[in-house]
Amino acid sequence: MSDESQELGITESKSHKPGEWYAEVVQKAGLADYAPMGGFIVTKPRGYALWESIQDALDGWFKETGVQNTYFPMFIPESYLEREKDIVEGFDPEVAWVTQGGHDELEERLAVRPTSESIIAPFMAEWVRSHRDLPLRLNQWCSVVRWEATETKPFFRTKEFLWQEGHTAHATDAGAWEEVWTRLSQYERVYEDVLAIPVLRGKKPEHDKFPGADTTTTVEALMPDGKSVQGGTSHHLGQSFADAFDITFVDEDEEEQTAYTTSWGLSWRALGALIMTHSDDQGLVLPPTIAPTQVAIVPIWQADTKEKVLDYSETIAEELEDAGLRVELDDRDERNPGFKFNEHELNGVPLRIEIGPNEVDDEEVTLVHRPDTENVVADREGLVETVEENLDAIYDKLYETAEETLEENVREAHSPEEILGTIGKHGGYVKTPWCGDQACEEAIKEKIAAEIVMQPLAEEGGASAGEPVRPDDDATCGVCGDDAEEIAYFAKSY
Amino acid sequence: MSDESQELGITESKSHKPGEWYAEVVQKAGLADYAPMGGFIVTKPRGYALWESIQDALDGWFKETGVQNTYFPMFIPESYLEREKDIVEGFDPEVAWVTQGGHDELEERLAVRPTSESIIAPFMAEWVRSHRDLPLRLNQWCSVVRWEATETKPFFRTKEFLWQEGHTAHATDAGAWEEVWTRLSQYERVYEDVLAIPVLRGKKPEHDKFPGADTTTTVEALMPDGKSVQGGTSHHLGQSFADAFDITFVDEDEEEQTAYTTSWGLSWRALGALIMTHSDDQGLVLPPTIAPTQVAIVPIWQADTKEKVLDYSETIAEELEDAGLRVELDDRDERNPGFKFNEHELNGVPLRIEIGPNEVDDEEVTLVHRPDTENVVADREGLVETVEENLDAIYDKLYETAEETLEENVREAHSPEEILGTIGKHGGYVKTPWCGDQACEEAIKEKIAAEIVMQPLAEEGGASAGEPVRPDDDATCGVCGDDAEEIAYFAKSY
Repeated sequence: MSDESQELGITESKSHKPGEWYAEVVQKAGLADYAPMGGFIVTKPRGYALWESIQDALDGWFKETGVQNTYFPMFIPESYLEREKDIVEGFDPEVAWVTQGGHDELEERLAVRPTSESIIAPFMAEWVRSHRDLPLRLNQWCSVVRWEATETKPFFRTKEFLWQEGHTAHATDAGAWEEVWTRLSQYERVYEDVLAIPVLRGKKPEHDKFPGADTTTTVEALMPDGKSVQGGTSHHLGQSFADAFDITFVDEDEEEQTAYTTSWGLSWRALGALIMTHSDDQGLVLPPTIAPTQVAIVPIWQADTKEKVLDYSETIAEELEDAGLRVELDDRDERNPGFKFNEHELNGVPLRIEIGPNEVDDEEVTLVHRPDTENVVADREGLVETVEENLDAIYDKLYETAEETLEENVREAHSPEEILGTIGKHGGYVKTPWCGDQACEEAIKEKIAAEIVMQPLAEEGGASAGEPVRPDDDATCGVCGDDAEEIAYFAKSY
Repeated sequence: MSDESQELGITESKSHKPGEWYAEVVQKAGLADYAPMGGFIVTKPRGYALWESIQDALDGWFKETGVQNTYFPMFIPESYLEREKDIVEGFDPEVAWVTQGGHDELEERLAVRPTSESIIAPFMAEWVRSHRDLPLRLNQWCSVVRWEATETKPFFRTKEFLWQEGHTAHATDAGAWEEVWTRLSQYERVYEDVLAIPVLRGKKPEHDKFPGADTTTTVEALMPDGKSVQGGTSHHLGQSFADAFDITFVDEDEEEQTAYTTSWGLSWRALGALIMTHSDDQGLVLPPTIAPTQVAIVPIWQADTKEKVLDYSETIAEELEDAGLRVELDDRDERNPGFKFNEHELNGVPLRIEIGPNEVDDEEVTLVHRPDTENVVADREGLVETVEENLDAIYDKLYETAEETLEENVREAHSPEEILGTIGKHGGYVKTPWCGDQACEEAIKEKIAAEIVMQPLAEEGGASAGEPVRPDDDATCGVCGDDAEEIAYFAKSY
């Protein structure tokens, strides 16, 4: 093999060294590179295309459900950040500060936005006057900066990251709850229908909420290494921001009322979960829903068969493209078929079509799935339908595999030893009744670096909506043994 | 009129106080608000929707012509900015600096990107190895910050602005020139086919080029107040960035060569030009191509006719929507038709359909164009086609009006007195032969604040491509009277 062929290979193993394997897949599949400043990455075309697919899906759903896009300044004056006390306490240690503009010191430091509640809320206060202005639903696609001193892990841990942040105001608490669930469901849908990743949904424990929030809801995805990823969060902010920034409105009875607000965000961490969940030791694996190239056609010729193989391949490529499929006809002269196979495998192309002189003569093609590599011969006739069926099958397979992993990895435990032992041995989630005391979480966290990542939450309307789901009446906390009022899912997490 | 009705009215006049009028239209039509920090604005949903339309058009054309989207960090280490001397000299006085991360001082200051050549070029150098990697065409949609101490004018002059920046590398000078023209043509197309604004295309004078560029090409749009707007620029960077950042490649003969690079950008200034060009004393005027709402249907009823008027209006709204038109059925109870007319006029809805009981009985509708306000009665039958024809006519009218203004406002002059007198009296462009000496431009600029905004440039292939178009052999500079080798367009500018 040439040097370049060796470069294509992933040398680390997903099961033995998941961290190194992940970093190698990200770089070799052309998704991202490390920037010169620690904590920052460069998103390469193939990585950005994946983010664009997520954007397209979510942005469409947002707009169908009344959300309007906006753009607020990337800087927030320090005095604005200070107006909501939880936000400033929560984010102050992680803020990047602009202190100089041109050759001058600024009179007031400007925070590079770590999140935009503090600059959006004052404008909501101006724009909302009457109940007719509500609900107000704003969103922006942008990057934010959080100066965390941790090791860089592309898409999982970076100081700057891409996300969308939605910010809404409502006349009633119930309206805000409905918003919270709508967005959480859209995040769930992105994971399940676009990324082929099943998720659990619930709330974060009180001490791990978004700063200033009444309740933080989350979708959690289980990674193959047994850790949980917080896949997207939707916050009921209650009236804390409305109080701090005077978001009030005149109701139908001409009375002044305080609004309820929400915020919700999904970041490129979704790409990290995507890569981690499906990929393997041959490189990236992508569900056909999001793959920039769904089908790679690799013609295999000798000098005397080149013309007929290429002609046949071209008509197939055209036919598939006309059907709306994303197709690459890889007719490069300077690469042999083996190199091309490896490259498309590395890059996560879900379906490869191999075409040699025999396929032309027999009016057939050979189909190869990614990640499976079994060859299937298919008729040239009806190929569009065959390809679409194969792509669906690939999606289903990926989803089902991830779903089985998730289902197998939610285990119950009823004592500290059982919790520690189960997570230590299997990873995954351990479900246990919980007294609600943070000390019980700390006791586990100290020993095994697992924490409460999720609590099931009642989602129906009525009085209990937004309340934690209660365990059986006689349940006792899996850690301390006291009466348990709540259910907790412990897991290690990203 | 109620207070709210008065709020809708534009109080300033476009012809008498264009600056105040512009600011009022931007705010009252809900496009943008002023942020708490001077020089920053908040882009409201209606303004952002216009930017999304420009993005959709340009992004599609970019992708059709081989451009890949990426995302590079928003910060650039100072040492990277210093590697290309013209960039650092050009932008250093305007850079916003991040000096603190969390509670710590940074070891090296980070520039908030004023433009991204200095962070993109080093990665191009890594990614380009062989001639097969060229051309490399990258783009990102993002915001940049330039700390200019001027009065804020939404979309025209802001410290942070939204734009796209394209960055490409090529094996040959000719390849880079082709790229420069491709992008300039796409910018021209956005103005002419989306924004209904004709433009002039050419180059900036040598002393007004982008820092580090060999040639800066530009599309210039004439505003109704006689000033020119630089609508988008496409730079041939020659080999200056390739030299500074080692962008080299191995050619077909295995020789190492230095690449040629380009960069090109279009900002939300295009929105400023759009608003300024077409709008009037009633508010915003939008071409149907970009209007978020193309057709507003205003039903006019009394209690006894409400049901039949609304039913009829709803079937029309559905029919138009099904045909792909962007329609708003304004059935608000709490507003009277007069208020609605004013509001849709203010917001720049191109076509209003008025429907009262008479229209229902006669199976007709009444159409009202924006900016014209003459009523036209049209048959209910064939309404989709009628509406589409009317929207086309509205576009054509806007474009033709702008084109006439442009054509009438390019005048020739052959002495300093003539140049000053013509610009002083009419504004617009003054075309004159020029010796090429910056002193001659300065002489005009000192007296009347007009400068050389554009020079016609040979665009065909061959030796003269990229060279200024030459005037007649015996031409003399319109300012100093020396031999003239070039042609210059003087104008006041934004």
